[in-house]
Amino acid sequence: MTILHETAEKIKNMEIRGAGRIARAAALALKDEAKSIDTDSLDEFNAKMKAAYKLLYQTRPTAVSLPNALRIVMRYKASTVAEARSQIIANADAFVTGSENAVKRIGEIGARRIKDDFTIMTHCNSSAAAQIIQTAFKSKKNISVIATETRPRMQGYVTVDVMQKAGIPTTLILDSAVRYFMKKVDAVVVGADAITVNGNLINKVGTSQLALAAHEARVPFIVAAETYKFSPRTLLGELVEIEERDPSEVLSPEMQKKWPNLKIANPAFDITPHSYIDLICTEIGAIPPEMAYWVITEKLGWEIEEADENIM
Amino acid sequence: MTILHETAEKIKNMEIRGAGRIARAAALALKDEAKSIDTDSLDEFNAKMKAAYKLLYQTRPTAVSLPNALRIVMRYKASTVAEARSQIIANADAFVTGSENAVKRIGEIGARRIKDDFTIMTHCNSSAAAQIIQTAFKSKKNISVIATETRPRMQGYVTVDVMQKAGIPTTLILDSAVRYFMKKVDAVVVGADAITVNGNLINKVGTSQLALAAHEARVPFIVAAETYKFSPRTLLGELVEIEERDPSEVLSPEMQKKWPNLKIANPAFDITPHSYIDLICTEIGAIPPEMAYWVITEKLGWEIEEADENIM
Amino acid sequence: MTILHETAEKIKNMEIRGAGRIARAAALALKDEAKSIDTDSLDEFNAKMKAAYKLLYQTRPTAVSLPNALRIVMRYKASTVAEARSQIIANADAFVTGSENAVKRIGEIGARRIKDDFTIMTHCNSSAAAQIIQTAFKSKKNISVIATETRPRMQGYVTVDVMQKAGIPTTLILDSAVRYFMKKVDAVVVGADAITVNGNLINKVGTSQLALAAHEARVPFIVAAETYKFSPRTLLGELVEIEERDPSEVLSPEMQKKWPNLKIANPAFDITPHSYIDLICTEIGAIPPEMAYWVITEKLGWEIEEADENIM
Amino acid sequence: MTILHETAEKIKNMEIRGAGRIARAAALALKDEAKSIDTDSLDEFNAKMKAAYKLLYQTRPTAVSLPNALRIVMRYKASTVAEARSQIIANADAFVTGSENAVKRIGEIGARRIKDDFTIMTHCNSSAAAQIIQTAFKSKKNISVIATETRPRMQGYVTVDVMQKAGIPTTLILDSAVRYFMKKVDAVVVGADAITVNGNLINKVGTSQLALAAHEARVPFIVAAETYKFSPRTLLGELVEIEERDPSEVLSPEMQKKWPNLKIANPAFDITPHSYIDLICTEIGAIPPEMAYWVITEKLGWEIEEADENIM
Amino acid sequence: MTILHETAEKIKNMEIRGAGRIARAAALALKDEAKSIDTDSLDEFNAKMKAAYKLLYQTRPTAVSLPNALRIVMRYKASTVAEARSQIIANADAFVTGSENAVKRIGEIGARRIKDDFTIMTHCNSSAAAQIIQTAFKSKKNISVIATETRPRMQGYVTVDVMQKAGIPTTLILDSAVRYFMKKVDAVVVGADAITVNGNLINKVGTSQLALAAHEARVPFIVAAETYKFSPRTLLGELVEIEERDPSEVLSPEMQKKWPNLKIANPAFDITPHSYIDLICTEIGAIPPEMAYWVITEKLGWEIEEADENIM
Amino acid sequence: MTILHETAEKIKNMEIRGAGRIARAAALALKDEAKSIDTDSLDEFNAKMKAAYKLLYQTRPTAVSLPNALRIVMRYKASTVAEARSQIIANADAFVTGSENAVKRIGEIGARRIKDDFTIMTHCNSSAAAQIIQTAFKSKKNISVIATETRPRMQGYVTVDVMQKAGIPTTLILDSAVRYFMKKVDAVVVGADAITVNGNLINKVGTSQLALAAHEARVPFIVAAETYKFSPRTLLGELVEIEERDPSEVLSPEMQKKWPNLKIANPAFDITPHSYIDLICTEIGAIPPEMAYWVITEKLGWEIEEADENIM
Repeated sequence: MTILHETAEKIKNMEIRGAGRIARAAALALKDEAKSIDTDSLDEFNAKMKAAYKLLYQTRPTAVSLPNALRIVMRYKASTVAEARSQIIANADAFVTGSENAVKRIGEIGARRIKDDFTIMTHCNSSAAAQIIQTAFKSKKNISVIATETRPRMQGYVTVDVMQKAGIPTTLILDSAVRYFMKKVDAVVVGADAITVNGNLINKVGTSQLALAAHEARVPFIVAAETYKFSPRTLLGELVEIEERDPSEVLSPEMQKKWPNLKIANPAFDITPHSYIDLICTEIGAIPPEMAYWVITEKLGWEIEEADENIM
Repeated sequence: MTILHETAEKIKNMEIRGAGRIARAAALALKDEAKSIDTDSLDEFNAKMKAAYKLLYQTRPTAVSLPNALRIVMRYKASTVAEARSQIIANADAFVTGSENAVKRIGEIGARRIKDDFTIMTHCNSSAAAQIIQTAFKSKKNISVIATETRPRMQGYVTVDVMQKAGIPTTLILDSAVRYFMKKVDAVVVGADAITVNGNLINKVGTSQLALAAHEARVPFIVAAETYKFSPRTLLGELVEIEERDPSEVLSPEMQKKWPNLKIANPAFDITPHSYIDLICTEIGAIPPEMAYWVITEKLGWEIEEADENIM
Repeated sequence: MTILHETAEKIKNMEIRGAGRIARAAALALKDEAKSIDTDSLDEFNAKMKAAYKLLYQTRPTAVSLPNALRIVMRYKASTVAEARSQIIANADAFVTGSENAVKRIGEIGARRIKDDFTIMTHCNSSAAAQIIQTAFKSKKNISVIATETRPRMQGYVTVDVMQKAGIPTTLILDSAVRYFMKKVDAVVVGADAITVNGNLINKVGTSQLALAAHEARVPFIVAAETYKFSPRTLLGELVEIEERDPSEVLSPEMQKKWPNLKIANPAFDITPHSYIDLICTEIGAIPPEMAYWVITEKLGWEIEEADENIM
Repeated sequence: MTILHETAEKIKNMEIRGAGRIARAAALALKDEAKSIDTDSLDEFNAKMKAAYKLLYQTRPTAVSLPNALRIVMRYKASTVAEARSQIIANADAFVTGSENAVKRIGEIGARRIKDDFTIMTHCNSSAAAQIIQTAFKSKKNISVIATETRPRMQGYVTVDVMQKAGIPTTLILDSAVRYFMKKVDAVVVGADAITVNGNLINKVGTSQLALAAHEARVPFIVAAETYKFSPRTLLGELVEIEERDPSEVLSPEMQKKWPNLKIANPAFDITPHSYIDLICTEIGAIPPEMAYWVITEKLGWEIEEADENIM
Repeated sequence: MTILHETAEKIKNMEIRGAGRIARAAALALKDEAKSIDTDSLDEFNAKMKAAYKLLYQTRPTAVSLPNALRIVMRYKASTVAEARSQIIANADAFVTGSENAVKRIGEIGARRIKDDFTIMTHCNSSAAAQIIQTAFKSKKNISVIATETRPRMQGYVTVDVMQKAGIPTTLILDSAVRYFMKKVDAVVVGADAITVNGNLINKVGTSQLALAAHEARVPFIVAAETYKFSPRTLLGELVEIEERDPSEVLSPEMQKKWPNLKIANPAFDITPHSYIDLICTEIGAIPPEMAYWVITEKLGWEIEEADENIM
Repeated sequence: MTILHETAEKIKNMEIRGAGRIARAAALALKDEAKSIDTDSLDEFNAKMKAAYKLLYQTRPTAVSLPNALRIVMRYKASTVAEARSQIIANADAFVTGSENAVKRIGEIGARRIKDDFTIMTHCNSSAAAQIIQTAFKSKKNISVIATETRPRMQGYVTVDVMQKAGIPTTLILDSAVRYFMKKVDAVVVGADAITVNGNLINKVGTSQLALAAHEARVPFIVAAETYKFSPRTLLGELVEIEERDPSEVLSPEMQKKWPNLKIANPAFDITPHSYIDLICTEIGAIPPEMAYWVITEKLGWEIEEADENIM
């Protein structure tokens, strides 16, 4: 099996998971494919590359980072196969390096918004958001963190663990106590599952409650997001699908038996309107959420016709 | 041991618990005391009654319903012991009856605000709030309920159980999903631990997040509260103390060992500002929250001088 | 036929209409009945008066002014028929006089809120609201009026006519142009069909849009309402019923034939939340809307038990 | 010259000034007059008292505390001159004592809203507001104060002086820096020149900017006001007149000469809407601003007819 | 007469009307002119094309689509007449095709924002907005429409007709009932007369009231607008002129005679601030309104110097 | 001493001051340097130019206009020294001309937003903001100005002087009276010290209070800012440093001695959130604040890597 097919398989069966890892694996698979295609005909080369693109794309059609990675690698204009190949390789390498550095970059940018003596609230766990907090702490700022437990999967524990290992004073609170503590908070910092074309944030359910409470109390709300989190499908009007997860995460199967008619709703994400977001820290700088359309079209390179053809 | 002392003891060691039960037990203890005091001297009688009042009051000085019950029973004006005694007995009986009927009354009043096809969100479990929903359902309105699980003690399960037994369609959600579902909600109905002099609501932590999200989406927010929940201490400027509960409710002791420096904050209640409340349903009618001062002074009968002497 | 039955009949068949006229007619009918009942037995007298009350009450059970008038006249405490009779007569006379003077009184109170050079927006037509504007104009204030046309029955024309006859500069606008002109407005003045227990205003559909736009632009929103407009039923949690009027007011029957499946919705009123209302001018003074509960219980004299018995 | 006339004179020529001092002087003048009137005819006595009332009232017709003091002292119901006299004396004494104790009482009530480690912002200087802060500090709470300078008369310096003498950590800021510092503030505490019937606050110009910025940042805004600050004229719809002070306070006469066409506006007060006020601390307890109507009618004893006759 | 002059004439006398039709006619007139100019001198060609541009531009100087169409066709850079000609022809053809397809494209994009069981409110009639609703309905979504009648010209009837013919359940309401029904609405969809440089929407008067009420109730507000609706004049600070239409649309001439001093205001449009708009659906994708500046400069190709010269 | 070093010296010791003057001086210094460097080696030329860049940059590292001017002049791409030199000269000349014309351009653009009969409030003094007002006045619009005095340095007097000389009716008010007068204001126009990447405005302390009060009253808030005021450092997450000025500006040294423990806070600027800003008038057109990121990256030409290297 070629690396292309192996990668496609692994993305599909979720051996490769996580927005960043999926994106980089897909970029490298295209690079490998470009190297492997043995032809002098540019048309044939192009056709095979497109097929590879489609194969990878189909593995997780609702992911956000995957089409962005594929799109960026496939932006080549060449008159010979050699030219095309070398552009694809360069694109893939640049994407992988950029992606690997993105979190560090975001950490540096976001940390500059954290002042001494800040109390920072965060929700769920996000490596980019954590990076901002850790970078600020390493630069000798005296900060502390309030972490929500983030039912049902308790990703707040991961955040707690990261912060405790870094020696950052941390308080764990219930998801329902967000507004109670917001008055003592100087900034909220969260990650992103996706950013829509009009700058809304899709993230772990509960995020929009932090944003609403922060807005009510004039607390800055900062999002950490690599640009590959910006959703090209939303350019076409698509709504980001909110995954409905297993009810057993909320209520144990035994308990469920007690109330056979009880419905359990377990959406994984919610939507935070851009008007509650002060800033998105990306690897291309701090941006206002309303710039999302521009990031998708100018930085990620999507055009609406292509988007149609390639995505929908 | 007299009923007075027995009751005092039971309130203190929390054998008697729950705002309503405490209030009624205290009223009956005063009644019994009034019957028992064997004297013809009004001064002596008054002094003994006052002592009984103080004994009971000291058992749980931060409770809200206790001083209200005591105050109402003690509103007598008499020129003979017989007169005083009979007034106290009448006061106590009226209070107990009124208190027992209050929930039913609140249910009738609140149910009139629930229209056909309403989806009602509730938080924690409150018998008065549940009564509103059940009364509406019994009057053949086609309604459904969204109940939060209410971490950490999962009182949402009690609400689920009550609703399921009554045959009311119910959906269980996470506390963090409140804002996500608010757009589909027609009314929020919650109970009260206390109402402050300026109409703010003290209730299970998370309540103020429901209120904020309801306000954002123009969803009516209805509170169910017996008048003995109106806090006389707040008349004197007192803030209602927010109980900090055991961290083990949030994180198991074993997990706590893993992060010895982790702080855990577990406030039992939060504060919902009156501007997010549409209506408080009480046994004396539906009232706007700003009427709280009037309820405390005119209906519960507190005057500021007495309040000082009797409460602080 | 007695005056009682004649009045009941006329209210029922809407020969007598308008909140004020109904209220005064009912009060006078009770007065006449009190005079007519020929008995020395107080019990018999009371029973007959109660029957008269019920007869009148049943004529238009959802009206607001009717039960208020009846309630006020029936507030008597007597040990002889003569005493009872004279109290009822006095109550009825006082109510009628008060009611007749109320609009003038409201005009004086409200006019003091109108400053020189004010532009006042109004909606529909209300004699109390018009009185405020006219009183201000008569006191030599240089004011002008913006009147909405108030589809579908064009009551704005009545307002225009009143204002033009009084010589007050007037501009007629569309209902949809309210927000466009709000920036130039110094105060909004409207009447009331009913005031609820928590201070919300029930008035001609569109009123709440004026209030919302006024709130957005920091323009004071003033309501003119006689106290008999305060709805006692809402004390019991009742919602004020919003009358659905004939679709032909919106679309002519001929046009309706063109689209046989078209639904037409024609609610007569809408609900303005108290938080958008600065002041209600009543004959007992300028009051904040949150005082409505107190007006209903202390000024109109409703107690919740009576309300049940008498109204529901 | 009698004490009555002497007092009237001194109030008129502003020898006696300050809301509290005027009120107490007027009460004592009525008391002295009641003692002095030498007649057995109640009618004559009443007429002379009324004349005294009017004389005093005319001295400063727009003051708020003056009519309140007069009204409270004049609330008597008597069948003999002796009775009337003794009631008036008792009323005057009670008012004076109550008024003198009011600030202390307000201090105790308000101080309970101040928690440890609070930063409190205040504007202008108000003895009642200062009392709240000082009482909190004396009860060993670790607090600090941010005082605005309060152009043009720099009353902030008085506040600074009071706080510095009490040893309370204080920061002086510009009036224009209020919003900049609001994020660090835990409560705003200000005094009152007047409270209107719908709970709005009339106070030193700039107060409403503190309130607006506090509202934007979810910071509690607390008003300290003796009940004699509640304006009975507003019951009648009257707007509280905003005094326009000497332009030279803003710009020196020399500078004014430089720009002969320049207008200078120097309003002494502004109006803070009740929706930005959390609580008014009065000597009769902490109250929501919407209770103002009730304070004016039930506690200060104004009825609308009397208000007309006595005030307008 | 040449096609150029014929087209200019027809636009001027409004034989050709409607933003789209004007734009396409102008583009084709330029194309025809480019074909007709018989010269080898590029300078002469350019001069004649510029004259054609100016002729067409002057026909309706305040239209929005006209300068955009002209600008797009005139974006050519050539060294020979042949080159210039062919570019202009290509530009014109691309514009016409794009414009014709725009509504369909907008329909597809917007329809993705409409979920099953949505109730959609719309105002006036807009083919692009209608296209969104129809596209959603055709994709088997179970939706219904609330259409305002849109006084004074009752364009709501056109919307009703379109929806009824398509079989979409429709309710007709008064313009004043918008807020009353907003709580039941899942999305508002409207068209656009123009979009300003900072993303504000100019549309039929009343639109901003829908937006305000939608914002109050957290209802998404979606605008359908071809990019040629984005106003280049606003780049220069120009305000979009709000047309004042004939008073007889509001009040019949006969009625006007009744009140000779009555003013009638009849603005055709109002302005919806961008903060109330969630999304603008254009043929180049869904965009946040704040992107308007970028659309005007980068997509429509206006530069500020040219804008001056060409427009003002 | 070369012009380069002389200029650097003068910027450092603040002989050259003001954002525009610094920027133009720096541009001309680079131009002179480019002319002076006597070499044929492009590498040497580049190295020397870079050194010149760094020298100038270090003179005031927190200024905003300085790096923007340097960056724009240094955008050259050349294969010979001659080419490089000529590009730098052209860049410098274009920048200087553009900068000199910017205020006039901004005046024209902004003036179009000012309608007849407008009352305009402004704060501090800004030549660009003043230009807007003066341009509107010169175009025969009947306008008037409300100018705040702008403690502590009374820059409001400069505004007053400019307006009075131009014959524009002007009213001077206290900084604390902003909200009091806002209801009579039709537009607020202010200048800018800096614009951040997400469109926030850094300007004279007090500006954000004007913006907040304008927002509360639906009054447009317009900013006048040359594009060189857009801060490239904020692209990297940097917060704009708020200068803390001498306490003696607030309180004279003599007064300070009276209260040795008094702290005085004197921040020069505050931060106005972009959601309170309607429009920024720049020399490249009227833009929404959210476009700031695009101005910095696309118009000023900063890329994030360079920004790092060149700025931080």
